[in-house]
Amino acid sequence: MNSIDIKEKFRLFDDYWNPRIIGELNGQLVKIAKFKGEFEMHKHDHEDELFQVIQGNIKIEFENETVSLNEGEMIVVPRGVLHKPSADEEAWVMMFEPASTINTGENKPSDLTRDNLQKL
Amino acid sequence: MNSIDIKEKFRLFDDYWNPRIIGELNGQLVKIAKFKGEFEMHKHDHEDELFQVIQGNIKIEFENETVSLNEGEMIVVPRGVLHKPSADEEAWVMMFEPASTINTGENKPSDLTRDNLQKL
Repeated sequence: MNSIDIKEKFRLFDDYWNPRIIGELNGQLVKIAKFKGEFEMHKHDHEDELFQVIQGNIKIEFENETVSLNEGEMIVVPRGVLHKPSADEEAWVMMFEPASTINTGENKPSDLTRDNLQKL
Repeated sequence: MNSIDIKEKFRLFDDYWNPRIIGELNGQLVKIAKFKGEFEMHKHDHEDELFQVIQGNIKIEFENETVSLNEGEMIVVPRGVLHKPSADEEAWVMMFEPASTINTGENKPSDLTRDNLQKL
């Protein structure tokens, strides 16, 4: 039985918007990614997604508002809701979502799509 | 769309071993609880369980070892694995598990069982 030092896992990589898997339970994955700059607006038709900020600050733009999240804050983005994450400075984010979730949404592959994630 | 300040949620209650629900996604619940003292050895036959330490230190005793978890660390306890959480001092813990999970396990109701959880 191994404990996982979350921040230690972030120190294993340097690139942005490229989620790594650090845990799995009940068909859900625990992923971490470094955010910097702007991601693209997308949605997941069948999957809710949790974002927890481990370090820094991120913003998530929705159709009618933008939510700011600091370290120690989280948000659940319900399925079907368009959202666009961004971070002015590098931020460390942990996500919980089904194993099936693709980062850019199911219907919109792009240069930002990452679908063969590394396990750390 | 509301952000959730995780530590702020912990400040809303004072009792130990009594999980509150602070989020729900994909049939899974995000729960928080304050740990102090010893819980009981138990297992979940069909559910994996994630413990993330938000503040303080906890220990989880397994059949053959005890794992210590500090703030910023997490562990996934697989289904079927006996485990006994404890904390020498008050610790704040966030958990991810299916909505069906009962804190003392499915087959062993006790004075510690909490099965009608408050949503914060």
